[in-house]
Amino acid sequence: MLTVEQALQKILEAVSVLDAENVPIMETLGQVLAEDIVSTVTVPPLDNSSMDGYAVRSADTRGAAEKTPKTLKVIDTVIAGGISKKEVTPGTAIRIMTGAPIPPGADSVIQFENTDDAKNKDASLNQTPTQVNIFVAASPAQNIRRAGEDIAQGKTILKKGAVLRPAEIGLAASIGRSHLKVVQRPVVAVISTGDELTELGKPLPAGRIYDSNTYSIAALVKRYGCVPKILGIARDNEKDLLKKLKQAQDADMLLTTGGVSMGDYDMVKDIIARDGNMVFWKVKVKPGKPLAFGKINGRDKNGKPRSIPHLGLPGNAASCMVSFELFVRPALLKMMGKINVTKPTVSAIIEDSVKNNDGRRIYNRAVVEKRDGHYYARVSGPQGSGMITSMSQANALVIIPEENGGVKKGDTVQALMLDWNQEVNL
Amino acid sequence: MLTVEQALQKILEAVSVLDAENVPIMETLGQVLAEDIVSTVTVPPLDNSSMDGYAVRSADTRGAAEKTPKTLKVIDTVIAGGISKKEVTPGTAIRIMTGAPIPPGADSVIQFENTDDAKNKDASLNQTPTQVNIFVAASPAQNIRRAGEDIAQGKTILKKGAVLRPAEIGLAASIGRSHLKVVQRPVVAVISTGDELTELGKPLPAGRIYDSNTYSIAALVKRYGCVPKILGIARDNEKDLLKKLKQAQDADMLLTTGGVSMGDYDMVKDIIARDGNMVFWKVKVKPGKPLAFGKINGRDKNGKPRSIPHLGLPGNAASCMVSFELFVRPALLKMMGKINVTKPTVSAIIEDSVKNNDGRRIYNRAVVEKRDGHYYARVSGPQGSGMITSMSQANALVIIPEENGGVKKGDTVQALMLDWNQEVNL
Repeated sequence: MLTVEQALQKILEAVSVLDAENVPIMETLGQVLAEDIVSTVTVPPLDNSSMDGYAVRSADTRGAAEKTPKTLKVIDTVIAGGISKKEVTPGTAIRIMTGAPIPPGADSVIQFENTDDAKNKDASLNQTPTQVNIFVAASPAQNIRRAGEDIAQGKTILKKGAVLRPAEIGLAASIGRSHLKVVQRPVVAVISTGDELTELGKPLPAGRIYDSNTYSIAALVKRYGCVPKILGIARDNEKDLLKKLKQAQDADMLLTTGGVSMGDYDMVKDIIARDGNMVFWKVKVKPGKPLAFGKINGRDKNGKPRSIPHLGLPGNAASCMVSFELFVRPALLKMMGKINVTKPTVSAIIEDSVKNNDGRRIYNRAVVEKRDGHYYARVSGPQGSGMITSMSQANALVIIPEENGGVKKGDTVQALMLDWNQEVNL
Repeated sequence: MLTVEQALQKILEAVSVLDAENVPIMETLGQVLAEDIVSTVTVPPLDNSSMDGYAVRSADTRGAAEKTPKTLKVIDTVIAGGISKKEVTPGTAIRIMTGAPIPPGADSVIQFENTDDAKNKDASLNQTPTQVNIFVAASPAQNIRRAGEDIAQGKTILKKGAVLRPAEIGLAASIGRSHLKVVQRPVVAVISTGDELTELGKPLPAGRIYDSNTYSIAALVKRYGCVPKILGIARDNEKDLLKKLKQAQDADMLLTTGGVSMGDYDMVKDIIARDGNMVFWKVKVKPGKPLAFGKINGRDKNGKPRSIPHLGLPGNAASCMVSFELFVRPALLKMMGKINVTKPTVSAIIEDSVKNNDGRRIYNRAVVEKRDGHYYARVSGPQGSGMITSMSQANALVIIPEENGGVKKGDTVQALMLDWNQEVNL
């Protein structure tokens, strides 16, 4: 049976970065750039003012103070997006707004607050006074942003592989890009298997359970920036399962839940083995031992044959979510072109003793909290692999190694953080 | 001028939690539950097997071992979703699959691996053998999940106010809920103002800049789970601005960038003051001093008058993003019904000295990294308020307090984490 690391390695080796696509910039949030972005423009385009005030020759303001103002003749007003045709000559100033180009002759900007202009401001909008009193001496280059100080033309502002956060989207927009070439978001087909399952919203026959796995798994797919394709419940017969698998064949990944144990009707693994290519089945992990990984035959949008990675997750409600975090998330992130596919972990002091004698690594659902500068982890209730309540109460999975028989209260353990502050959007 | 805390308090006091709506469960990710969810069902519904194997009377297996197996007569097979009509009597066993109800008479389940069934498994699917050899003694209740052990009927499984992560979505699905009552996602109108702005994808006239703020701000809105309504560029004249404001009147919040400084054409703050209700203008923060907050008059979907919170963000590319993180994000989270509206901070050792003598709190763009168990922060390049490249290189904002003249290299500072691992979807 494979260890967690061995299983993960086999999965990561078998999946590849998806093709690139050209997408409107507002749809790229969280995707990975598939091109270097070289600036075709200069930002800012010209030397310009970082303040509302007066463009002056700094020499003219020497010795200016509250009680000994310097008086300058105002010869023009220039606004952002405009250009003054006049030159600041000795004894003159041009009224200038933030972002407006510095007029020839000026080497400094004095903000309104250091002139007598502000006092008259409310009297009338857009009135250029004939003269202005300056109350402070300006140093050369003061309040001037140089052309190209943020982005020089020809500079590579973003490299292939960058994850597009709001700042990267803003940066690409600042050079005028309306579309970006990004790695596609994986489309992930989700199928639940089992005769015991009932669809949400329908009456529940005796002894049956609702299909929750479709929704927890599809929500995880969405949460990590991929696109779930919900295919519903496949019953425990070959015909139904094959029908659903056919609907999954244009997806980039297939996730099934259930059908991977030792039972007679656990056909998922048998069908991967028969019609596809089974890479492994079973991992030394708890919960989640019955995890099948292989490839099934599919077709791309153009009908070209290709093989689709298929993870057969266990059917238990908590197991399938833990398996997703450990094995599916890294695979999807790799397919999205991301380099860092590991979830953050913290060192935490465990507040419960946990035995581990069966040779499998345990990932217990837990609540991790910071107190007095240390992280503490407590197990979030009963850990039965079917129990989803303890998953909902958890914000982390604490790792109980397969060696040493377990951990004792007070030991330091590694906690894989599912969520910080119980938030999806940090 | 208000401090950061005072400004934030005024904003939070002025916004309210939005109304609830009933939404298909798959669309609720990241939203806040607006109802208590009480289970109408029992999960699991009946005592059932957690393994594929044989339901037995544990007393019948006493003394069983590899060399001294106990032989039992197999009288039936029961699968998940099925119910056996037979009773396990002394000397008999019922073949049982994971999730199938425990038949009357049985008090224990022996997994296939501890019987001679597994060896014959591949020979034919779904074949019930006439007898089975048991190789281990079973203890009572072994491999049995009790009815209701995860969810008892009548139990409150999720409380009003819970943030819906994949686990909560799975939990609600497990009791059959196809829709959930959640607090609405805020719709946020986004307007950029300025004659100097050019739309993405169009040629750039001399001296003009592209409108990047629309996209960085809309991406932030989306990133935190809200819905951006992009209204484009308003030119620096009252008519154009009023026209755009009218298009924003059915939004839950209005964000403008630019038009809030001291300049002649900074009409945004003047129009809030005249047509709405200006709460404050200017905050002791750098970047981002010119921040206007007020309410404008709008109408809800039914045409009923209401006032809409309006944040007039500074026009500089980095300033408006920093102002969003400090002031808009907490307001949106409150409107979404979230309780924890603060972004996580870490204590970090700063690797640059930063002066602060102008009485404003500085939020410098920085890279925070963990090395040898400590967080270190270094400033990510020039901090000009128009510079978005340093925002793209940052994963945090380090806080330089307004007291004490600044911080020295080696001092411990607080860093507000924008992103962990430069990732949007952690």
